[in-house]
Amino acid sequence: MTTRNLEVCLTPAVFNRFDHEDAAVVIIDVLRASSLICTAFANGAVAIIPVSEVTQAMDYKKKGFMVAAERDGFVLDFADFGNSPFNFTKEKVEGKTIVYSTTNGTRLIELASASFSCAIGTFNNLSAIIRWVLKQDRDVILFCAGWKDKFNLEDTICAGAMAEKLIESGQYKTICDSAYAATDLWKLASPDPLHYIQKAAQRNRLRDKGLDDCIEYCMSVDLNASVPVVINSELRDFSKLT
Amino acid sequence: MTTRNLEVCLTPAVFNRFDHEDAAVVIIDVLRASSLICTAFANGAVAIIPVSEVTQAMDYKKKGFMVAAERDGFVLDFADFGNSPFNFTKEKVEGKTIVYSTTNGTRLIELASASFSCAIGTFNNLSAIIRWVLKQDRDVILFCAGWKDKFNLEDTICAGAMAEKLIESGQYKTICDSAYAATDLWKLASPDPLHYIQKAAQRNRLRDKGLDDCIEYCMSVDLNASVPVVINSELRDFSKLT
Repeated sequence: MTTRNLEVCLTPAVFNRFDHEDAAVVIIDVLRASSLICTAFANGAVAIIPVSEVTQAMDYKKKGFMVAAERDGFVLDFADFGNSPFNFTKEKVEGKTIVYSTTNGTRLIELASASFSCAIGTFNNLSAIIRWVLKQDRDVILFCAGWKDKFNLEDTICAGAMAEKLIESGQYKTICDSAYAATDLWKLASPDPLHYIQKAAQRNRLRDKGLDDCIEYCMSVDLNASVPVVINSELRDFSKLT
Repeated sequence: MTTRNLEVCLTPAVFNRFDHEDAAVVIIDVLRASSLICTAFANGAVAIIPVSEVTQAMDYKKKGFMVAAERDGFVLDFADFGNSPFNFTKEKVEGKTIVYSTTNGTRLIELASASFSCAIGTFNNLSAIIRWVLKQDRDVILFCAGWKDKFNLEDTICAGAMAEKLIESGQYKTICDSAYAATDLWKLASPDPLHYIQKAAQRNRLRDKGLDDCIEYCMSVDLNASVPVVINSELRDFSKLT
């Protein structure tokens, strides 16, 4: 088996600097988008449609779709969910297609859609996403969402956790400085990741808004086996497609 | 004394995401631009004029200036120096103004020139640059040059070394994820920085080109007390201006 190349992209601002056309890409947005998406699929959602504009989300709502829409931590009036993974219960999402209003998330998915394949990863679905990458058997880019184009700690250590497992598999190698940094930071964080990210800016933004009840959940490994993949600009659960 | 804010910018691609207009900025390009600039001033250069185009460098050469110009590791025919700090001896540079052809360096200086003040830092002038920052007594951005807009290890751990000293001074604090990452990576690297960067891509690019004789020099702390600052798009040694 060919040894494939692994890279880590620390911010969307430089994604186009990576040769991604033939690569598998894993988008990582630990707090909280990746977590809510994995949770929704684990609880039986059929599809998630990301949209960048609130007006698009409102149009879908009028057509009868369930809508997740939040700005600055506040659930928008017309929406059924905010961004907490705890909102996406089996009772609410099973068998449903959910429209998810996320400007940044939609941009990341558009960027990554020019790649060979694209999935959503986080701590919650770590083992499942590793299995998906290994099945792709091609170069991989672990794509950290960051915050307003800046680096963030939680996505980077999650990329480090994935990189460590992929390199341990023997199927991947790296010569990428960002991947070395991510795995080194993960080594520092791994004895107690929840403690490590206490200093992270997004962890503190969520605390300031009283939205930090889900931090421990979002940092938990292998809560589910969802593999949200991008197909025609929508997300589907690969683990149920195959 | 007011406690000032410290941030680390890991790549030029996101510099404009930082509030830099009122900040002091330290540009860090360890392998090898920062090192050659500090060495030239330590050996008595009067000024360094960065230019982005080779044709500009050639025009200066015709006017009688000494010119440093290298592309992909090769000294250009018409130039007096390449990018190795070892080229910039006292015999060659004392009392001279040197034109330095560097597309990326010129871009970084242009970006950072919109800030309150801007200096060039690296391991070679670490203590001197820390003293300069503390004298500025304002928010600081440690600005890593990276490689083609991507993150690199050597600039990041150098930023971490500076951040550690500035925070230890009590005059600076940080809430910046990039600064936490840089200081954490520096803690890992600091027992043996030269060993730590053996895996860095730029270290290996220089080895492949037989240009790695200066790595140990570039990673050495406090070889000189140069403080190259940007004044009217030229570099001058602040330590000799005051």
